[in-house]
Amino acid sequence: MDARDVIRRCHVMAEYTEEPGHITRPYGSTSMAAAQQQVAQWMDEAGLNVEIDAVGNVRGVRGAAPRLMIGSHIDTVPHAGAFDGVLGVMMAIALCRGPVEVVAFAEEEVSFLGSRSLVLDDSVAAYLEFHIEQGPVLESLGLPLGVVESIVGQSRYDVRFTGRAGHAGTTPMRLRNDALAAAAEWIGQVERAAHETEGLVATVGRIEAAPGAANVIAGEVRATLDVRHACDSVRAAAVARMKPQPSRGVTVEFTPTMNQPAVRLDAEPVAHAVEAAGFPVHRMPSGAGHDAMIIARKLPASMLFLRSPGGISHHPDETVLEEDVAAALAVGARFIDDWRPR
Amino acid sequence: MDARDVIRRCHVMAEYTEEPGHITRPYGSTSMAAAQQQVAQWMDEAGLNVEIDAVGNVRGVRGAAPRLMIGSHIDTVPHAGAFDGVLGVMMAIALCRGPVEVVAFAEEEVSFLGSRSLVLDDSVAAYLEFHIEQGPVLESLGLPLGVVESIVGQSRYDVRFTGRAGHAGTTPMRLRNDALAAAAEWIGQVERAAHETEGLVATVGRIEAAPGAANVIAGEVRATLDVRHACDSVRAAAVARMKPQPSRGVTVEFTPTMNQPAVRLDAEPVAHAVEAAGFPVHRMPSGAGHDAMIIARKLPASMLFLRSPGGISHHPDETVLEEDVAAALAVGARFIDDWRPR
Repeated sequence: MDARDVIRRCHVMAEYTEEPGHITRPYGSTSMAAAQQQVAQWMDEAGLNVEIDAVGNVRGVRGAAPRLMIGSHIDTVPHAGAFDGVLGVMMAIALCRGPVEVVAFAEEEVSFLGSRSLVLDDSVAAYLEFHIEQGPVLESLGLPLGVVESIVGQSRYDVRFTGRAGHAGTTPMRLRNDALAAAAEWIGQVERAAHETEGLVATVGRIEAAPGAANVIAGEVRATLDVRHACDSVRAAAVARMKPQPSRGVTVEFTPTMNQPAVRLDAEPVAHAVEAAGFPVHRMPSGAGHDAMIIARKLPASMLFLRSPGGISHHPDETVLEEDVAAALAVGARFIDDWRPR
Repeated sequence: MDARDVIRRCHVMAEYTEEPGHITRPYGSTSMAAAQQQVAQWMDEAGLNVEIDAVGNVRGVRGAAPRLMIGSHIDTVPHAGAFDGVLGVMMAIALCRGPVEVVAFAEEEVSFLGSRSLVLDDSVAAYLEFHIEQGPVLESLGLPLGVVESIVGQSRYDVRFTGRAGHAGTTPMRLRNDALAAAAEWIGQVERAAHETEGLVATVGRIEAAPGAANVIAGEVRATLDVRHACDSVRAAAVARMKPQPSRGVTVEFTPTMNQPAVRLDAEPVAHAVEAAGFPVHRMPSGAGHDAMIIARKLPASMLFLRSPGGISHHPDETVLEEDVAAALAVGARFIDDWRPR
């Protein structure tokens, strides 16, 4: 199986959907059950001994334990692209060699149910995952592949600004407690602080102003803050700088809703394989969570990113270059050939 | 009729509502028809010759033409207070003396239908309106009354920022086109520019970010801008300074939806009456539209503001001080006594 075959199979998988014309394959759906059977069949054809576990993870083994586990997930977000997760599973099946276990996790997009509930005995000694980057970094650098060093830690906050609603015509500027003006100033501070710290990303993605009329000063604004960095202490310091302060008589509540530490991955074997296969080694963090993040709690876990054209993911326009898949397959073959359980 | 009687009648009017427990009396409603009959009865008792016109304006005359018209509106916003509009009509009835016509406009809150459709012959020579300020200025100055010099002009714009949605974790700060960050910077510019110009108010009251998820960079933001000033050229210059500019790769559309010129009122007779009645003269613009703004196109139109406690209006907590109503009645009596058609 070459890169073209892998991509073709990703498109076959796209036909398993709850909504014709879109790719929507959530955990527990009829289309997911059919997709699991399809994957099991391909694993069987690849000479793997296949089982589907209680959660719905499709697992296929070959060779003597201890084995290298290779996989990703086959569930999708609504109106997804064809490659998020699926590409990693199709590549794993294409790479069947040595003592391996291929896994297709049943659910990653909502709660990582598949990797969280995976039963691991001593037959598996390490984990490898191929995944599209889902971001624009590799493309911006002109690189096909990225060696993932870590999954960033993540903080999330709900922010509430409470001022006083008022008539937009009859309330002079000096007598206002404008919650939206306060929120806007804070969003600027968040953006500036994020730019000042290498590798940090901070996002205010949701905002709601009430009462929300053109001729009424906003009395209340609710917003979210999402902060990520590969180093937990850098993230904590950034969050402290980004904490909103009262201004204009507008008070602030800043409520944590997530505090997820960074996870180190086993990058060196991937870097060696990339170099040995003749590609430039670019080390990078992953800004999004992946199954490797869950597995890394129990086993050495490694990840290789493939360039995402346009940085697009979770969208029908999500794609991957055939040459990048070929490069990743070459790296994967090298990784497996060099792999020894530690 | 003294100030206490006027306030008592405002509370009687509050009973004419579409929603028991709230004051909601829109144009064309059953409660409005009953309120018109109540007002007509009070006018009749005050010795006025009453007619209700085709639109629903209640008009009562006494004395020989040319007369001074005194009035305001008796419709309300949903869940209104008891004094917006109604107070001016109850005061006009209480002030019946000299050659006057009292008018209760049937609709002001939505489209100024009452004053817009008023048929004026040569029997009316000028217009006077009492109204609560609906803002915090008089209270902040410790003053009972305000002489309204003008109704501010008003510009409104719809603003659209178009960037690019992206994953909050995988998109580095330098590769973002964050529409909400661009909008936030613009809101700060609007606020600063408004503070720099005396008497100017500028408000971004509505904002919507799409897709609007905590972990997705906003690809599009829609917002509104409302700018008001008593001088049209000052307003135009301010709007030019507040026009959003592209930044961060985010493009901008800035679409005018309203451009209403300022209206001069006939302030001097009001100022004289305030002074003669022994109260401090404070001249101010009105930041909101009123029936006087419509009538001013055809006749000399004057307005007196009464202090709004807490600056509150369009809300059940809207109120007025009895002493301020007494002051305004004294000023009104003096205005009428001094009034001569020009």
